[in-house]
Amino acid sequence: MPLSAQRCSSKSLTQSRSLLSLFLLPLRRLFSATSPAAPAVSPTMDFAGSEDALRGILAEKQAGVDAQAEAVRKLKAEAAAKPEIDAAVEALKVLKVEAAAVAKRLQAVAASGGGGGGDREAFRQAVVNTLERRLFYIASFKIYRGVAGLYDYGPPGCAVKSNVLAFWRQHFVLEENMLEVDCPCVTPEIVLKASGHVEKFTDLMVKDDKTGTCYRADHLLKDYCKEKLEKDLTLSAEKAAEFKHVLAVLDDFSAEELGAKLKEFGITAPDSKNPLSEPYPFNLMFQTSIGPSGLSPGYMRPETAQGIFVNFKDLYYYNGNKLPFAAAQIGQAFRNEISPRQGLLRVREFTLAEIEHFVDPEDKSHPKFVDVADLEFLMFPRELQLAGESAKLMLLGEAVRKGTVNNETLGYFIGRVYLFLTSLGIDKERLRFRQHLPNEMAHYAADCWDAEIECSHGWIECVGIADRSAYDLRAHSEKSGVPLVAHEKYPEPREVEKLVITPSKKELGLAFKGNQKMVVEALEAMSESEALEMKSALESKGELEFQVCNIGKSVSIKKNMVSISMEKKKEHQRVFTPSVIEPSFGIGRIIYCLFEHCFYTRPSKSEEEQLNVFRFPSLVAPIKCTVFPLIKSQKFDEAAKVISKSLTAAGISHIIDITGTSIGKRYARTDELGVPFAVTVDSTSTVTIRERDSKDQIRVNVDEVASVVKEVAEGQSTWADIMWRFPTHSVSHPDED
Amino acid sequence: MPLSAQRCSSKSLTQSRSLLSLFLLPLRRLFSATSPAAPAVSPTMDFAGSEDALRGILAEKQAGVDAQAEAVRKLKAEAAAKPEIDAAVEALKVLKVEAAAVAKRLQAVAASGGGGGGDREAFRQAVVNTLERRLFYIASFKIYRGVAGLYDYGPPGCAVKSNVLAFWRQHFVLEENMLEVDCPCVTPEIVLKASGHVEKFTDLMVKDDKTGTCYRADHLLKDYCKEKLEKDLTLSAEKAAEFKHVLAVLDDFSAEELGAKLKEFGITAPDSKNPLSEPYPFNLMFQTSIGPSGLSPGYMRPETAQGIFVNFKDLYYYNGNKLPFAAAQIGQAFRNEISPRQGLLRVREFTLAEIEHFVDPEDKSHPKFVDVADLEFLMFPRELQLAGESAKLMLLGEAVRKGTVNNETLGYFIGRVYLFLTSLGIDKERLRFRQHLPNEMAHYAADCWDAEIECSHGWIECVGIADRSAYDLRAHSEKSGVPLVAHEKYPEPREVEKLVITPSKKELGLAFKGNQKMVVEALEAMSESEALEMKSALESKGELEFQVCNIGKSVSIKKNMVSISMEKKKEHQRVFTPSVIEPSFGIGRIIYCLFEHCFYTRPSKSEEEQLNVFRFPSLVAPIKCTVFPLIKSQKFDEAAKVISKSLTAAGISHIIDITGTSIGKRYARTDELGVPFAVTVDSTSTVTIRERDSKDQIRVNVDEVASVVKEVAEGQSTWADIMWRFPTHSVSHPDED
Repeated sequence: MPLSAQRCSSKSLTQSRSLLSLFLLPLRRLFSATSPAAPAVSPTMDFAGSEDALRGILAEKQAGVDAQAEAVRKLKAEAAAKPEIDAAVEALKVLKVEAAAVAKRLQAVAASGGGGGGDREAFRQAVVNTLERRLFYIASFKIYRGVAGLYDYGPPGCAVKSNVLAFWRQHFVLEENMLEVDCPCVTPEIVLKASGHVEKFTDLMVKDDKTGTCYRADHLLKDYCKEKLEKDLTLSAEKAAEFKHVLAVLDDFSAEELGAKLKEFGITAPDSKNPLSEPYPFNLMFQTSIGPSGLSPGYMRPETAQGIFVNFKDLYYYNGNKLPFAAAQIGQAFRNEISPRQGLLRVREFTLAEIEHFVDPEDKSHPKFVDVADLEFLMFPRELQLAGESAKLMLLGEAVRKGTVNNETLGYFIGRVYLFLTSLGIDKERLRFRQHLPNEMAHYAADCWDAEIECSHGWIECVGIADRSAYDLRAHSEKSGVPLVAHEKYPEPREVEKLVITPSKKELGLAFKGNQKMVVEALEAMSESEALEMKSALESKGELEFQVCNIGKSVSIKKNMVSISMEKKKEHQRVFTPSVIEPSFGIGRIIYCLFEHCFYTRPSKSEEEQLNVFRFPSLVAPIKCTVFPLIKSQKFDEAAKVISKSLTAAGISHIIDITGTSIGKRYARTDELGVPFAVTVDSTSTVTIRERDSKDQIRVNVDEVASVVKEVAEGQSTWADIMWRFPTHSVSHPDED
Repeated sequence: MPLSAQRCSSKSLTQSRSLLSLFLLPLRRLFSATSPAAPAVSPTMDFAGSEDALRGILAEKQAGVDAQAEAVRKLKAEAAAKPEIDAAVEALKVLKVEAAAVAKRLQAVAASGGGGGGDREAFRQAVVNTLERRLFYIASFKIYRGVAGLYDYGPPGCAVKSNVLAFWRQHFVLEENMLEVDCPCVTPEIVLKASGHVEKFTDLMVKDDKTGTCYRADHLLKDYCKEKLEKDLTLSAEKAAEFKHVLAVLDDFSAEELGAKLKEFGITAPDSKNPLSEPYPFNLMFQTSIGPSGLSPGYMRPETAQGIFVNFKDLYYYNGNKLPFAAAQIGQAFRNEISPRQGLLRVREFTLAEIEHFVDPEDKSHPKFVDVADLEFLMFPRELQLAGESAKLMLLGEAVRKGTVNNETLGYFIGRVYLFLTSLGIDKERLRFRQHLPNEMAHYAADCWDAEIECSHGWIECVGIADRSAYDLRAHSEKSGVPLVAHEKYPEPREVEKLVITPSKKELGLAFKGNQKMVVEALEAMSESEALEMKSALESKGELEFQVCNIGKSVSIKKNMVSISMEKKKEHQRVFTPSVIEPSFGIGRIIYCLFEHCFYTRPSKSEEEQLNVFRFPSLVAPIKCTVFPLIKSQKFDEAAKVISKSLTAAGISHIIDITGTSIGKRYARTDELGVPFAVTVDSTSTVTIRERDSKDQIRVNVDEVASVVKEVAEGQSTWADIMWRFPTHSVSHPDED
């Protein structure tokens, strides 16, 4: 059962589409909400060769089995001697065992191609069991049998989330002096019409013709292909290649293409086996109505970014009318998924943290880029992807210098995101920055990189970092009529040549009567080149045919009807629409990956069972410290309470456990919650502090405990520093196991 | 224009109803969502006497004017001598002036009764102007002309909110080891059916018969009565009393009563003057649909509490199956108000912070009550309210000891809420704890107190602290079939007598055939007294007539058909539904009141204008510190940047302003944001630190600045301590004004 997962904005979402689909229409690319969290075919997994080889071997082995079986049958029919028959049967058995072994290997390889794999599956189950049992998350409204795609964070999960968000604020908002805003989730239709969500934020759906049950069309096709690849071991290499190709491109199928494939494969409703409807788009926003009239449609926002864009003018003013600046927002976003799967990674309500960094399109340098230029981590630029290679360690400074990353500001945020994720405890070897292929990006985007984290579901897009150019501000300027622009004052006024088109309303009125207004508008809307062409035509021929779209025909324009001239004007400032660089964080997805990266098991001392541990850094650990009296004793209980009080005063979250349970069990219980430090009261003057992962213990005076724990929990000192300063406690406590 | 306000749960909401309405039905009392943020008639305002007196005086004066006017007319008609006429006209003027003066006083008194008043209005306008200009909040989607009842927090407002929430977590969740959870906003219908919201969470609405425009019925009636009282100075004392009575009781009018009053007063649609429909209930929840089928209705949660109740079983287990424990949740809640007014105090989306403290109903003591028992603050128990008196300073310990506050746990939370609000900067003289009158409380509630904060809108309910007994858990147990109960193990098993009813299925089957099952059920469902009655009847008469509801007739039960006996059983534990004590915080309302309590103006040095200041405590100040080079100078700019970097490293939010603006203007700008400390760089070795309210300045070494600011901003030292440790800087900076 899965926890509250989330994903990034529809844009970054769709930007992480399957890699082999090179011919997306810009609008579908921008808006269709489908996001294969684990790409069907990952360019880093080059298992295909060995899988094909195995299929070949299996086919051979199977042929061997068939031939031998035939031979046995023949011997029996001929009533051959018993020893002869027995030998043949024995040989058949051996062949069968060999074939079965190959089949098993093939099965494993095929399954791992889908992001599964036996080990991964088992690991995920162990993590998820622990997370559920210890209430890191809970299926929402469980007593009413729950709702697919809705999850609660229980106490430790909620604490982790709140630590992650507090660190996000510290790391981004405070460090960069960002302007944080907090906008409502309820959003009127007009805003989401301008952004394009009302028209385009859809997934393709099919319905069971008889029961009306809804399915995501691409899921059905994907499931069918995966099932074939994993289960049907007799599949020819050609057929397998075909299914793989479908998996790679299905995210980009049109409704018609999807429908045709479903028909071709004879796919029916999974539950009832009834025929399915044609695929049609379903809008993923939760719709509602604002106010009592029923006349103001609204939606629960699918991302937080729009709240920032519509406030650009005020925020720019707040920043002293200066660029660059960044605004940020943390908040809930909503997507009414057709059929949520992948547990915590695809849910109907989730927390986003988004940054919109507004910058002059002519200057995307960043003064603090030097601070991150020396970072080295796994980058996966489009060249490597297209060449079928893997992500490589690269220096960020190099990547920007060589133009692999489009500009310094984008590079700066990539570096900051790397520092953010690894500080939380994300394993840097399972973190890569993958550049979008040209076909994945919206047509207006300058460059996009996703921070992808590998977990048992495959590589998951957790942060999108996109240079979206001026697209969003322009869309809202147009729809609202409020110019969302920035100004750059010139040190001295500049003289510029400007084209001036002056239609003569009088002459046009005489000529075109009721159509005059439309003709005037059409003339004024001419581009510079069109106008110059008209000017020269009028000068040479005195008139020309001119197509007026909004009356649907062309009219004859004469020289006296319009004057077109280049005029010199003084300009005091440059007015332009800023570009926006958008790092967008799916907080729930990051947290889920963090859970997996921090989870491990170790044998108990008695080696009878495996103990679960989350190795959360103190920064995100839900509880920083436990306080345990070693044995049931009033003296120890009192000392424990004194320590607990001093920890509260120091602002250190902790739990005190004065049950008589064995100290080993108490350690195990709290290791499972990822508590980094345990204070054990085995005397009233000094106590031990144990570190979770090393299980090292030191001796500290009772009145120093709070300050030592605070120091190490808040990162002023490392555990190694502390070990060096205090005497080690090397004797195991009596009942520790 | 108002900011994001909010209110408490529907329950606590309605618990703060008007005081004079003593005869509410329990269900309406519980659910109707109307909340007069400023009660129409506040029991502490005893202006009624003087208002009535003024109305009397005005009537007399007006009669004098009328008589004198008549006298003047008469003199003129009689063509009296000019001096005589002039004298009479002069006397008339004097009388008119006197009458006008009385009218003005009456107007003021009448207006202040509605929570308005000229001074209050002007003060509010000054606060709101500053809040809007400095982007503490913004009307949401402003470029699209906004949506009533939706507001954004801009950068300083968002920072204040996030500081308030961080402190809330520290003060409540950490201090009490509460189990914080985080549940979705999207909620399936069944949950809100169980809680009663689907049926009862409504306001009464009327529609303009012709245009269809919607109005809240009680608002129209309230506006009409207020307008009459404030503007119609010729109102007789009887008529005035009638309108006041209507204001006092209108929150409790049924649809029929409201409709009748609207008709009686001839109230029409305010905009069009068209006739109005009859009032009818409008459900205030934003409705939506979960999933693609359209068959699963859902709502945006109107409060966060239900998410906790439905998780009780898991949370109880997480707490080691022990009571008491508290769960907490911070999150968005939604109310689709018919016509939002009162700006930031009544909005359609708002942040709630709610605590559900589960406790054994037989033991509501609290071990930490002693920590708050000595607190003394304004309490307003129901006796004082009913006697028409004002709130009084009371010792919390006394209030609990005397039974004014029902129990220690409730008292403990009242004390903690007091500490929370005053730490934020709420003025303790404009904060009172008002007990609900019996008619305001739901029938199941044991006791309820509201923390009310006085602002320019009157006394505003900002926190509700209610002992809701077992109501909520029982409602969800019944609807879900999952027992939400606690267990208390007895030290030794107890012997109890239990009634055992054993129907003989065989005999009943022979007698009633197909109805057997229904008869069995009816027999088993008998109460103890019914069963004992049947037992004695069967013993004496051998048979009796027994009404079986679900077959709709009575049947004859004979002795051999059922055995009824008292049997002794051993019980090992007590099973019970816990009581819940619920402190529920309307975060936006608290923040708005805080804005008003922290706002003041002071003359600029040149005394030409008033400067605005927010005296936020450092704890909530949106930015803790500014860094200003005194004059434009590269050296100073560099020193300022070094200081800025050290502040960032220390985690102190700050702004650096290296524009050449005069230092006085820069102080004024940031005083308006409530920044408590300003570092002015007037040398590269030592700098000054200025405190916002006293304007005192000290001299500190550049490399000590960050640690000094951190110390005082985080409350380890007071400004007074700091003043004592560092040399005072007494010379004004040159251009400071």
